[in-house]
Amino acid sequence: MANPVLVEVTRGGMVESFHRGAFALVDGEGRLVAAAGDVDRTVFPRSAIKVFQAIPLIETGAAAAFRLTPAELALACASHSGEDGHVRLAAAMLAKAGLDESSLECGCHWPFDAPVARELARRGETPTALHNNCSGKHAGFLCTAVHRGEDTKVYVGRDHPVQVRARAAIEDLVGQALTIDACGIDGCSIPTFAAPLKGFAHGFAKLVTGEGISPQRAAAGRSLIDACMAHPWEMSGTGRFCETLMTAAPGRVFAKTGAEGVFCGALPDLGLGFALKIDDGATRASEALAAAVIARALRREDADLAATFDGLGRRTLHNWEKVEVGEIRATMPPA
Amino acid sequence: MANPVLVEVTRGGMVESFHRGAFALVDGEGRLVAAAGDVDRTVFPRSAIKVFQAIPLIETGAAAAFRLTPAELALACASHSGEDGHVRLAAAMLAKAGLDESSLECGCHWPFDAPVARELARRGETPTALHNNCSGKHAGFLCTAVHRGEDTKVYVGRDHPVQVRARAAIEDLVGQALTIDACGIDGCSIPTFAAPLKGFAHGFAKLVTGEGISPQRAAAGRSLIDACMAHPWEMSGTGRFCETLMTAAPGRVFAKTGAEGVFCGALPDLGLGFALKIDDGATRASEALAAAVIARALRREDADLAATFDGLGRRTLHNWEKVEVGEIRATMPPA
Repeated sequence: MANPVLVEVTRGGMVESFHRGAFALVDGEGRLVAAAGDVDRTVFPRSAIKVFQAIPLIETGAAAAFRLTPAELALACASHSGEDGHVRLAAAMLAKAGLDESSLECGCHWPFDAPVARELARRGETPTALHNNCSGKHAGFLCTAVHRGEDTKVYVGRDHPVQVRARAAIEDLVGQALTIDACGIDGCSIPTFAAPLKGFAHGFAKLVTGEGISPQRAAAGRSLIDACMAHPWEMSGTGRFCETLMTAAPGRVFAKTGAEGVFCGALPDLGLGFALKIDDGATRASEALAAAVIARALRREDADLAATFDGLGRRTLHNWEKVEVGEIRATMPPA
Repeated sequence: MANPVLVEVTRGGMVESFHRGAFALVDGEGRLVAAAGDVDRTVFPRSAIKVFQAIPLIETGAAAAFRLTPAELALACASHSGEDGHVRLAAAMLAKAGLDESSLECGCHWPFDAPVARELARRGETPTALHNNCSGKHAGFLCTAVHRGEDTKVYVGRDHPVQVRARAAIEDLVGQALTIDACGIDGCSIPTFAAPLKGFAHGFAKLVTGEGISPQRAAAGRSLIDACMAHPWEMSGTGRFCETLMTAAPGRVFAKTGAEGVFCGALPDLGLGFALKIDDGATRASEALAAAVIARALRREDADLAATFDGLGRRTLHNWEKVEVGEIRATMPPA
């Protein structure tokens, strides 16, 4: 059966396009608090679980040994915009481990954010691996490898200790083994393992409640989530939607986008985690739905804040002459 | 009922995302030669019917009076990339009518093609209305208004003679009245009227067969389609998919993309027109499906050429390190 329509795009009062998908809002015990669509479908979480992948950076003691700051921990969980400050911070993390950008294996790309890319071009520059949106995550991987005395080459390989540790943390949080037949290669060359959508939501709920995981793991996860909530710009970039969501409720909402229409997050005060996937992979839809899911989670506790997130789930569309032409809106089904 | 899945995006051998939609391949009498999904659904054709909108440029005699070249006619039907040559050609069209870019009402935007935008930024320039992907269409509108002695101000308005003529041509081709309640504003500020998907396919089939329309209209349409097939770069841009499709079968395939996952086209030799819409509006999917629909149309006549278009309906995906990670592929349902 097809997943329900969860986001609509209108023009002139008509629905021009629409997006189907699924979401799961889950508590620490794994109970569905709210959901739509097929939450058992196996999906690639992509960058939405960078927090899971950064847990070994804390657990190995690497973050403490290299005195990584909360801003640097946020960058380790980031899909950043490649702004100058992100590039400097990634270089600083590598320098703490005695490395530089030549150790990064994430590849180079022009910043996704078009104005940032054009500014780089205007200055006559070209992007380095430090501009890659994943450079902070990779700097974190390298800090861990150096701290443990492991090879810093081919750390993106599935069998490198860095990836083995990340995989073990994800398996613990998702609550099932991650198998090779559900493994793809991510944009930055590391393995990405597919698992049921609700498993990723449960993983975030475990991290903010500590249920079903070791106190050490819960503390590691919480320190990363707190770092992201305190440094949303480092974790995303100027005007990016993760920054928008987290600055709308400082310290109360964690949210992280992933490629191909994935979004994950947590509401630490409420002990809830969520995960969503838009079937067609559209970011415009995953963003609108993420705001709506957060609004749903907050509704009973804080109606005003829920209304703020309802508002973030709708965006007016303008054309090149700044004329209003329609909107993108989450269409949350009845509870 | 949900439209069928027509395009899949894979990663690591799994389907990561997928796109639903509908297509209609139609002959001059309006018979469905092949179809999938709800072809009666009302959709906005957006830029995919710029040929329809340019018909008055020929029929009023403006194109002849201003001695517009085939390359300029192609630009009048274009969503171009804003490359230097496109900008010069749009300026030349306006100059023939005694105007310049200050008359354009399409608005300014950075070229959609990222390398073109970065090159503009690298030179320290910013985009003008001539860079707008619709500047050729607007130059055509203005040529027609000047030729007819009409006001060149607010020519984007729904009641301006330029738009009234365009609307009448579309109604004739689609075979039904276009109503205000199905009218939106397009990206370049002109009205866009929604109509059933199969109507747009039929319109292109009418233009290449002459069935059901006046010989003058058929000749006007054919001259525009021939101009586009002869000048695919002017009608799109370097490496753009319309260019790719038309250069793969010179003079035998016309294809035009539109925003929000629309694609239209015609196979003049076969007397067929097609229209498709991806439900979620994704261009990556409309492109793959357009190639597959053209392949379907050609299969019986030219198996080799059909295989070429089947190939264009699949695209290998690489990550930033150029590692193959998956593919985008049209999944044409059984005939």
